[in-house]
Amino acid sequence: MDSSREIELEGHIIDSGIMTRVYDKIIDMGGNFELITFDVGKKKQDISYARLIVTAESEELLEEILSELHRLGAKMPEVEDVALKAAEADRVVPKGFYSTTNHPTFLKYNDRWIDVEDIEMDCLIIIKPDEDRAVCTPLSRLKKGDLVVIGEKGVRIVPPERSRKVNSFEFMQNTVSSERPSETIIAKIADEMLEIRKNGGKIGIVGGPAIIHTRAAPALAEIIREGYVDVLFGGNALATHDIEYNLFGTSLGMELDSGKLTPGGHKNHIYAISEVIRAGSIRNAVEQGIIKKGIMYECVKNDVPFILAGSIRDDGPLPDVITDVVEAQDMMREYLHGLDMVIMIGTLLHSVAIGNCLPSFVKTICVDINPASVTKLMDRGTSQAIGVVSDAGAFLPLLAKSLSKKSQE
Amino acid sequence: MDSSREIELEGHIIDSGIMTRVYDKIIDMGGNFELITFDVGKKKQDISYARLIVTAESEELLEEILSELHRLGAKMPEVEDVALKAAEADRVVPKGFYSTTNHPTFLKYNDRWIDVEDIEMDCLIIIKPDEDRAVCTPLSRLKKGDLVVIGEKGVRIVPPERSRKVNSFEFMQNTVSSERPSETIIAKIADEMLEIRKNGGKIGIVGGPAIIHTRAAPALAEIIREGYVDVLFGGNALATHDIEYNLFGTSLGMELDSGKLTPGGHKNHIYAISEVIRAGSIRNAVEQGIIKKGIMYECVKNDVPFILAGSIRDDGPLPDVITDVVEAQDMMREYLHGLDMVIMIGTLLHSVAIGNCLPSFVKTICVDINPASVTKLMDRGTSQAIGVVSDAGAFLPLLAKSLSKKSQE
Amino acid sequence: MDSSREIELEGHIIDSGIMTRVYDKIIDMGGNFELITFDVGKKKQDISYARLIVTAESEELLEEILSELHRLGAKMPEVEDVALKAAEADRVVPKGFYSTTNHPTFLKYNDRWIDVEDIEMDCLIIIKPDEDRAVCTPLSRLKKGDLVVIGEKGVRIVPPERSRKVNSFEFMQNTVSSERPSETIIAKIADEMLEIRKNGGKIGIVGGPAIIHTRAAPALAEIIREGYVDVLFGGNALATHDIEYNLFGTSLGMELDSGKLTPGGHKNHIYAISEVIRAGSIRNAVEQGIIKKGIMYECVKNDVPFILAGSIRDDGPLPDVITDVVEAQDMMREYLHGLDMVIMIGTLLHSVAIGNCLPSFVKTICVDINPASVTKLMDRGTSQAIGVVSDAGAFLPLLAKSLSKKSQE
Amino acid sequence: MDSSREIELEGHIIDSGIMTRVYDKIIDMGGNFELITFDVGKKKQDISYARLIVTAESEELLEEILSELHRLGAKMPEVEDVALKAAEADRVVPKGFYSTTNHPTFLKYNDRWIDVEDIEMDCLIIIKPDEDRAVCTPLSRLKKGDLVVIGEKGVRIVPPERSRKVNSFEFMQNTVSSERPSETIIAKIADEMLEIRKNGGKIGIVGGPAIIHTRAAPALAEIIREGYVDVLFGGNALATHDIEYNLFGTSLGMELDSGKLTPGGHKNHIYAISEVIRAGSIRNAVEQGIIKKGIMYECVKNDVPFILAGSIRDDGPLPDVITDVVEAQDMMREYLHGLDMVIMIGTLLHSVAIGNCLPSFVKTICVDINPASVTKLMDRGTSQAIGVVSDAGAFLPLLAKSLSKKSQE
Repeated sequence: MDSSREIELEGHIIDSGIMTRVYDKIIDMGGNFELITFDVGKKKQDISYARLIVTAESEELLEEILSELHRLGAKMPEVEDVALKAAEADRVVPKGFYSTTNHPTFLKYNDRWIDVEDIEMDCLIIIKPDEDRAVCTPLSRLKKGDLVVIGEKGVRIVPPERSRKVNSFEFMQNTVSSERPSETIIAKIADEMLEIRKNGGKIGIVGGPAIIHTRAAPALAEIIREGYVDVLFGGNALATHDIEYNLFGTSLGMELDSGKLTPGGHKNHIYAISEVIRAGSIRNAVEQGIIKKGIMYECVKNDVPFILAGSIRDDGPLPDVITDVVEAQDMMREYLHGLDMVIMIGTLLHSVAIGNCLPSFVKTICVDINPASVTKLMDRGTSQAIGVVSDAGAFLPLLAKSLSKKSQE
Repeated sequence: MDSSREIELEGHIIDSGIMTRVYDKIIDMGGNFELITFDVGKKKQDISYARLIVTAESEELLEEILSELHRLGAKMPEVEDVALKAAEADRVVPKGFYSTTNHPTFLKYNDRWIDVEDIEMDCLIIIKPDEDRAVCTPLSRLKKGDLVVIGEKGVRIVPPERSRKVNSFEFMQNTVSSERPSETIIAKIADEMLEIRKNGGKIGIVGGPAIIHTRAAPALAEIIREGYVDVLFGGNALATHDIEYNLFGTSLGMELDSGKLTPGGHKNHIYAISEVIRAGSIRNAVEQGIIKKGIMYECVKNDVPFILAGSIRDDGPLPDVITDVVEAQDMMREYLHGLDMVIMIGTLLHSVAIGNCLPSFVKTICVDINPASVTKLMDRGTSQAIGVVSDAGAFLPLLAKSLSKKSQE
Repeated sequence: MDSSREIELEGHIIDSGIMTRVYDKIIDMGGNFELITFDVGKKKQDISYARLIVTAESEELLEEILSELHRLGAKMPEVEDVALKAAEADRVVPKGFYSTTNHPTFLKYNDRWIDVEDIEMDCLIIIKPDEDRAVCTPLSRLKKGDLVVIGEKGVRIVPPERSRKVNSFEFMQNTVSSERPSETIIAKIADEMLEIRKNGGKIGIVGGPAIIHTRAAPALAEIIREGYVDVLFGGNALATHDIEYNLFGTSLGMELDSGKLTPGGHKNHIYAISEVIRAGSIRNAVEQGIIKKGIMYECVKNDVPFILAGSIRDDGPLPDVITDVVEAQDMMREYLHGLDMVIMIGTLLHSVAIGNCLPSFVKTICVDINPASVTKLMDRGTSQAIGVVSDAGAFLPLLAKSLSKKSQE
Repeated sequence: MDSSREIELEGHIIDSGIMTRVYDKIIDMGGNFELITFDVGKKKQDISYARLIVTAESEELLEEILSELHRLGAKMPEVEDVALKAAEADRVVPKGFYSTTNHPTFLKYNDRWIDVEDIEMDCLIIIKPDEDRAVCTPLSRLKKGDLVVIGEKGVRIVPPERSRKVNSFEFMQNTVSSERPSETIIAKIADEMLEIRKNGGKIGIVGGPAIIHTRAAPALAEIIREGYVDVLFGGNALATHDIEYNLFGTSLGMELDSGKLTPGGHKNHIYAISEVIRAGSIRNAVEQGIIKKGIMYECVKNDVPFILAGSIRDDGPLPDVITDVVEAQDMMREYLHGLDMVIMIGTLLHSVAIGNCLPSFVKTICVDINPASVTKLMDRGTSQAIGVVSDAGAFLPLLAKSLSKKSQE
């Protein structure tokens, strides 16, 4: 005999496409449904409410379908408390653990709804019973005895609804084409940045060394100096080549202002790293007057924190680089909190890493000369990302100019 | 005072996402709506029916909104006959002309609904009053005095609903990623080809010279010989390098079986063209025993028509190449009729050209090593295309093998 | 018994790498050599002279080797007149015909050296005996009875030597990387353009519709207005979208200044074409005040010729488009004469087509967001091309700015 | 007054292009030269010998020029011992330190020539005076007091000469084109692997998760089982998705054999990691019968070491992953020793990291669907890499088949 269960959906479920996806998911998975109630928003500001009975030929299939519908925001009309199970060892998950999405998530615990802190995708939820808190926790931080949420029971997620105001970014959504009006897109990004700054919001930049190689470092330094950046994420190469450029005028040995290879320039990045090691840190090197301009200089001078995560490609590395990748992830998470917008430029590695830790409501822009980089970021779950297929060396100078012009209007 | 009008929607309008897109479009364009009736399909096989009043602050804006909704399949409850206007000169459109989509389209004419023949995107519709026919007509073929349909009045389009059976291709829809299981995808394409052949359907291939350069020509020749191809579209380069390979073992002078440049090989493609010119045509060259194997040989031997369209990159060209691009388009249109599936391999130029002339219900697969090629094809309106990011030289041998294995099962 | 022959090499054969390539070619092809004389340039301005005996195990192999060495600039010490053979039919080559390189080429005819006119790759050389002229001729123009040069005997080519002055472009040679300093490269291109204009040289632009889609048309229009462009090559799409943008503010229906899709905008390009058809030509449409700005407008106003070559992707096309591709090639050839520099932007089709007809000494820059496009251009023989991996929408505004700034210095 | 110095060059300096590059470098840098002696190899097996006086307008410029010529293999006729300087602190380089190339390098020390051990690019050379050894040392391993080689004096490098036998790979050198005959290239790689195995040589594989996503894991597992792989380099994702595929049939939740997303599949990779953590290691999980097939299984069963280096993108990670990137680099170096060939597949991060540590004489093949990845690898100094633009999902099955067929011949 068929198994069935009732679910509810609420919100702008037609115009945000959720109703469509719910229908699709049930049908694709071989289930069936009957619509019980459908109060449709009559006008554009109205929300809708639907109640469906979902049916499947086995309880197991039904559970699978409901688990997927859950991720689309479906909830059970009658909600019990979450189920919990203690981890039997460090970093060993209990069977049936709840795996997080990157959407805002709520739990029914002790008959009350509580918010899950620090939400990001592909993590577990741990209940801290003494504090009545639910915390999103990556596998690497799971400890023996932690109380882990099991299954979807008592968990509710709220997928982002499409903004009802005509969003300035909207036109770019879901397109990864190089055939878009470059200056128009840059102007919209500048508008959004100015709006966020006006409202006291926060902006993070994720950058790769292509910023330096394409000679866009002065533009990014200016953007930092003008106060548009609240935190910078990157790796050893970003900082090394920025410092190399500022000490020697080169990046990977190429003199950027002339485009020529400098004799002996291949050593410059090693010298740059060594000089910072001698000073003790990038901050020390700035304060001792060794580094006199550039991206890292502006970060130090303007108290913009920078998180430099290590990678196996690194030479050196600089003393500021966090060489343990799990520690680096934790540090990235700490500084991602509270960001309203993240702009990723010319780095697939750091973009995917940051994307993994970002909630879905953070505005995310990914600028890369390779359209496949943006596709990969989205494939990895950062589906809110807006792709801009452009060259860092042209994008950043035009963005700096646009910000400067617009901020004076 | 606001203007308003009533529209109807019918079909799987929730699960095919049309309801979502209708809401979005109204809101994005600054209109408003009220839902009058919404008979929702209660079960998965049921269709839904909705009636909305759309409102806008001016008649002009309302017209713009309705024009867009029309393209999503919305219709007016009360339908009048189409409006018509004669073209004042050859290739000069009357103001307000109806521009076609690539979806099945119907007209109300003399109070009856008639089907628009040869539908393709970005064309006009001409009424032939004596024959009660409506024909989709490209600008290049518009003649002075032709009766051109004006506006959306009396026109009804039926956008493709998402297939309700679990479609074998469905999983690939709208993804242009290189990170998909290659052999699995190839197996599904082979299944679809076998299914189409079993049902008496027709398959077209659009190919670029990369097929030869990557040494996939023997595989394509085999696929043609085995009867899977009903028509071949390509250009001078496809045929020239195929013939060059068969006469000299080279392609652009590279010996394909060893990967080495052949001394003097740079002349081989000119010789190949010249030999065909001497014979008079590719068919003659095959019949005279000059061409003894390969793609073109199999086309001739198996009576598979081939349309070779000229381009400004062409050397020669071969006598079979249609050097006038408008004539070539007309020939392409003629041979596209009745195709159920088109597989495009390694050519952006020919893929976009063929895509321009294809109705949206033809299964379209685009195989290219560059994901941006597939994106561009979709950007140009061939939104049904499924992208496969792969190398022709590996894809075609695996497809030939898969077809051969499956057809013997 | 082994066959052998003596060859000479002269010029900067060491530093231009020709000596290396000669050695490689002989060895790769299985030949042998002995160096008879080697007068090495002692100082950097000196030229060198080498005389080698090349040996191979058969006369046939020796001929093959010598044919390849010929293409590197090797010549026989004793030169006889070229061998000639009449074409037996239109577009049918005599066996053993000489296939041209794109390097400057000279013939010994009637015991005198004459220059081959209109040199381009993959063509034949026709002797006009009455006029003592040798003309490079594409296969499509070969007529029955034309006297075609056979083999390399009496033919001498002069491959480009690497410039001995420190060339401003040199640093970019042979690299197709997106990690180059964008503004520095653009400044160098601007310097070169100013230098050419100062010396009375000529510059051609080859452009694709991405120029319009990325909203770089105003920048290109400015560059034309300021007199930097002597001829424009493109297709129907370049002109259509430029005119669409100027008539309606859109390109493929997207409003470029806001980045939004315009309601009904999908018809705009058809309207644009139709309006030009009504006027009779682009020039007429400009003169009648229909087209008021943009790329095509500036071409007409500044008497810059434009060659619009047809392709099978074209809608319309515009009345100015040459729909026969062989005619279009001939027109392109006519207008390529005397150019010193060609800048190709965002179009693979037109870039390869123009590249096919360019002599190797014309400075050639190819700007494309896709590095594979530049690779393909070089693969097709335009090996002098310098690749710039950038976004037209950012590149052209920065180039216009750089030209404007530098021209005022 | 001008400064000048004498240098020597020896070997196949014409045909390997070194003479050309020496001339170019001197001229590009603004120096001058006079050729004193040039004994040219008269026949193809002969080596040449040249002696030049290099002149520059200042001692400083001369030093710069000589430093660059050194990297091309030039040596001083009279060689003194290397200069040494002690490092003043850990990871702080002495001014003027010698920065390594990835070519075989020799030092004059105590009047004897000694070989530099473990050569790789961008490192320092440390002399161990008690042991008469010279060791290539990355900055991260430099200790206070280490004796560091300063300048080029007494250092001699031997850049690779182009192989004089007709190398099977030769035809692919320096091309990064997707338009090459795929099966022919794969056959040549198979030949080379068989040849290396026959001669007792060693082969390393560097792999990314695209191998699993494209369903090429069974093919790679077969290649390992058949004994063609001596060490595997990768990251957490390669091993995690391989194990996920073997435990659940999915990769990132997609069922690879059907191409469908599995319900709940998004959790599978976390389960896979957790199961391995529970077992303690990948080896334990294999030995306990948890992992029953796949890439990691074959590595364990066939005692092929695997080095899994951490990255900030990692979920988990697996207990076998080295999370500290500097430790991971050291481990990579240890296992790279003695390899004759490295095949890199579908991972830019690991390919560049391994490339950084490879001597130039190791045959290096980089297979990637994105031609820009190969360009970047070469840009970062791994100039011996041969690029194959293909899809891992098609490449590996064809390679496995080719190896299997050829090994039975």
